[in-house]
Amino acid sequence: MTELTLSIANTIIAAAFEKGAEAKIKPLTIAVLDAGGHLKAFQKQDGASLLRYEIAAGKAYGALAVGMGSLWLDQTARERPHFVEGLNAVSGGRIVPVPGGVLVRDQAGKLLAAVGVTGDTSDNDELVAVAGIEAAGLRHQVE
Amino acid sequence: MTELTLSIANTIIAAAFEKGAEAKIKPLTIAVLDAGGHLKAFQKQDGASLLRYEIAAGKAYGALAVGMGSLWLDQTARERPHFVEGLNAVSGGRIVPVPGGVLVRDQAGKLLAAVGVTGDTSDNDELVAVAGIEAAGLRHQVE
Amino acid sequence: MTELTLSIANTIIAAAFEKGAEAKIKPLTIAVLDAGGHLKAFQKQDGASLLRYEIAAGKAYGALAVGMGSLWLDQTARERPHFVEGLNAVSGGRIVPVPGGVLVRDQAGKLLAAVGVTGDTSDNDELVAVAGIEAAGLRHQVE
Amino acid sequence: MTELTLSIANTIIAAAFEKGAEAKIKPLTIAVLDAGGHLKAFQKQDGASLLRYEIAAGKAYGALAVGMGSLWLDQTARERPHFVEGLNAVSGGRIVPVPGGVLVRDQAGKLLAAVGVTGDTSDNDELVAVAGIEAAGLRHQVE
Repeated sequence: MTELTLSIANTIIAAAFEKGAEAKIKPLTIAVLDAGGHLKAFQKQDGASLLRYEIAAGKAYGALAVGMGSLWLDQTARERPHFVEGLNAVSGGRIVPVPGGVLVRDQAGKLLAAVGVTGDTSDNDELVAVAGIEAAGLRHQVE
Repeated sequence: MTELTLSIANTIIAAAFEKGAEAKIKPLTIAVLDAGGHLKAFQKQDGASLLRYEIAAGKAYGALAVGMGSLWLDQTARERPHFVEGLNAVSGGRIVPVPGGVLVRDQAGKLLAAVGVTGDTSDNDELVAVAGIEAAGLRHQVE
Repeated sequence: MTELTLSIANTIIAAAFEKGAEAKIKPLTIAVLDAGGHLKAFQKQDGASLLRYEIAAGKAYGALAVGMGSLWLDQTARERPHFVEGLNAVSGGRIVPVPGGVLVRDQAGKLLAAVGVTGDTSDNDELVAVAGIEAAGLRHQVE
Repeated sequence: MTELTLSIANTIIAAAFEKGAEAKIKPLTIAVLDAGGHLKAFQKQDGASLLRYEIAAGKAYGALAVGMGSLWLDQTARERPHFVEGLNAVSGGRIVPVPGGVLVRDQAGKLLAAVGVTGDTSDNDELVAVAGIEAAGLRHQVE
């Protein structure tokens, strides 16, 4: 049975940065949280702005909160904003409900972690997160 | 005069889970708060996501906050979002204003508790809460 | 590999209540948190006071925070109060550093959960937590 | 003029882990904050307990708060606990006042960052932080 290790988390971040470099996108910030919502690994590229840790972790935490990728939160926030506002309230203000927070599962579907990426457009952030997860041989869930 | 006992709270949860199993819905999380808003009993089924305690309790707490089932908060949040946002602010961020938070009254109408259910659609969550309350021989108030 | 299930959590609570009844101690409140610090199951006996959920969860959360039973926190709070105060600060005020918060491990030593008990003396609370964990066939860590 | 880069932060963490491995100490968690108190890089070794990010960052943040290594906060907390408690209060509860939070300066003395280490004794945590900073060719300030 797969567990989230630091080695896996670092592999995800490195591969995501590589994907970002290929796509020539803006400085990226990436947080990997374990399945309990606790930070496992984090890196912020040079030039990224002040609150990028909070944004990256907020995407990943939101995904874990509901068991869906943060794309789902983005869609739900448009349709039922009061649900997402309430969710954020009871989380203690820890959720950023836009794409870029992606769940990480092993090949059997077990939840291992969530990756949060911020820095470019939300769609590019998500793409980079997915690339990192695939490079680690794991499955992603974006919504 | 009826008081909320642990036995009643456990009966509500067990009956609600039974209803959920019959309806083949997703893993459920159920919180029973007493009339003072304090947790009496709680169970989270396997596979439910990270923030389900906070969501379940947030529905029940919201219902107690205004003396209406959380369906009323959902409707109000659509019509007057600023009221529900203000309510959430003064509660210290403890309210999730969507259906699934149901007040529990005895046959004389006395308020005993609130039940909060989360896991499936808000409508199914509410249905399950109602089934649990009825199984305990008590009255429910969904809005 | 053992995972924390709702069935295990309910078994721990039921056995702990049985031990409490045998020992004729005061009304008990018991919280079982998963290894990520999220509430899995909770029951509060009739007659227990207002903040018992927060106390029970606070003992269990403290144990998980440092990877030691809350007896260790109690001892550390006497020797280095500023460490435990700082720990509580960065936890967002979620820790009650007295005995009664006990880690739950499987037979291989893997961390599954923490149990928090409150209601009687801290020593009796701990005894009751240990009895519940043993009844579930799991290992306990009190410090 | 030296600036904190991600490359420097990663070098500090890698060298600190190497020192920890040599000294055969417990699983370590290391946070590098920039001079503005914002997270730059972070890694948590396998087996470290739940709240280790908050503790590591809390040591580094405390050091930046007063412009002294967290050893100074530890000493001050023993002599004037009310000062450290007040400091923690006005920080929003972000400080863990024990050794292991070390300031990072360039050779001219300019403040670049703070490193926070947790996992073993506070003294070992500090030793590991110092080793990481030296490996990056920078100056450390432990008090």
